[in-house]
Amino acid sequence: MFYLIGLGLGDATDITVKGLRALERCSRVYLEAYTSVLTVGKEALEEFYGRELIVADRELVEQQADRILEDARETDVAFLVVGDPFGATTHSDLILRAVQAGVPYKVVHNASIINAVGVCGLQLYRFGETVSLVFWTDTWRPESFYDKICKNREAGLHTLCLLDIKVKEQSEENMMRGRKIYEPPRFMTVAQAADQLMQIVQRRRGEGEELGLTEDTLCVGVARLGADNQAIRVATLQQLVSCDLGGPLHSLMVTGQLHPLEVDMLQL
Amino acid sequence: MFYLIGLGLGDATDITVKGLRALERCSRVYLEAYTSVLTVGKEALEEFYGRELIVADRELVEQQADRILEDARETDVAFLVVGDPFGATTHSDLILRAVQAGVPYKVVHNASIINAVGVCGLQLYRFGETVSLVFWTDTWRPESFYDKICKNREAGLHTLCLLDIKVKEQSEENMMRGRKIYEPPRFMTVAQAADQLMQIVQRRRGEGEELGLTEDTLCVGVARLGADNQAIRVATLQQLVSCDLGGPLHSLMVTGQLHPLEVDMLQL
Repeated sequence: MFYLIGLGLGDATDITVKGLRALERCSRVYLEAYTSVLTVGKEALEEFYGRELIVADRELVEQQADRILEDARETDVAFLVVGDPFGATTHSDLILRAVQAGVPYKVVHNASIINAVGVCGLQLYRFGETVSLVFWTDTWRPESFYDKICKNREAGLHTLCLLDIKVKEQSEENMMRGRKIYEPPRFMTVAQAADQLMQIVQRRRGEGEELGLTEDTLCVGVARLGADNQAIRVATLQQLVSCDLGGPLHSLMVTGQLHPLEVDMLQL
Repeated sequence: MFYLIGLGLGDATDITVKGLRALERCSRVYLEAYTSVLTVGKEALEEFYGRELIVADRELVEQQADRILEDARETDVAFLVVGDPFGATTHSDLILRAVQAGVPYKVVHNASIINAVGVCGLQLYRFGETVSLVFWTDTWRPESFYDKICKNREAGLHTLCLLDIKVKEQSEENMMRGRKIYEPPRFMTVAQAADQLMQIVQRRRGEGEELGLTEDTLCVGVARLGADNQAIRVATLQQLVSCDLGGPLHSLMVTGQLHPLEVDMLQL
């Protein structure tokens, strides 16, 4: 059996009892480590689960999925994912490969950022399309997320912005030269995300565009949601540019129309 | 401490280790029982948790929240919610009351239908606004959810439709006469939801309206998501009118534009 097990969002104890029991039966346990991270590291998980974990980076998952699924027809293999197994699309691909290889699979769900953001007081059914913000480079500065946020706001809806994660990435030069040297991990902060959005706002104002989102739009920055030291900051977009919410992971929400109960919750 | 603990979606073992440990320290444990249900009943939960559970119906939560929060400053009290604590808005209200009463609180997240629907293969970040379908009566046939689904589809987005739950509801007559006699619980099925949508489609076609959703729109019906006997049915809206997915809870997804990977997943 191939188990896809969600680990939730906080620390080692956020695994479900069902997930822990399944994991204990497995001959190999992989830890997916490039779409999200827990505030506690791999060692804390290994200690609590009582199991050695094999770190599964993007390369292993995307190019050597067969190795992960090997003998999963005869024995049990687990693939652990921070949050819920279906937060990231890569894991659909693993399921497809399992089915093609005749390997039965089970999914053990858990909290993901998609539903846990409800803790800040914004109601989950009043969110529109989720967007992703990527780190801009000198030559690549996509803005499509801005237009999606505006579209949500036009419909009165909030937007969850998932912020970029770069783990085990090669620099362009190292990639071109085929050198497997990796950059230190980078996690986009709420401040960086707010700054990118502010740059778009300013540029488009300069072009005379009507703005669906401005520096005064109320936003919520969250960090380490679900962990004991989670941080929630309610402020305008402009104010968030200079906020420091500490270590990863960060997410940003842009509000749409607020319900009175949401206003009360945001003031806590 | 007041703990709001998510139970996840399947059975008793879907609680997190963190949630179970918190629950074991509590002097009183409430089970919220009107916004969702697990496929296993209260008794199975009590046996697994080793604790007696006090069923919290709508009346208790909305009108007697103080009783729930009583002595939560000195002792630990838990409030268990199927799925994630913030799937339903009522629970924000409990948090507000706790804060007003000076009671510290902690939230233990878990999977909710909002993120677990990813298991059927539709990608979570391609969903628009979530809608709720309520049981129609002779005199009350709201259609606003239909327009929201069309709006999502226009933007290429999928829609998650949460289906109505009626637990411990009085008939109109009993309510007017002040008789505390309750109707048997009712849970809207995928077939009933599809039927209501089809009636809207037919009526609006009759009025010559351009349709954003038709009998041929691809939908996904799911039942008991996360449980061992979960059911997933991919079919047109019309086909779902006559489907039988078994016991509660059911949810319906209306697809927007499909990504090739989503098409592959839906064929599993």
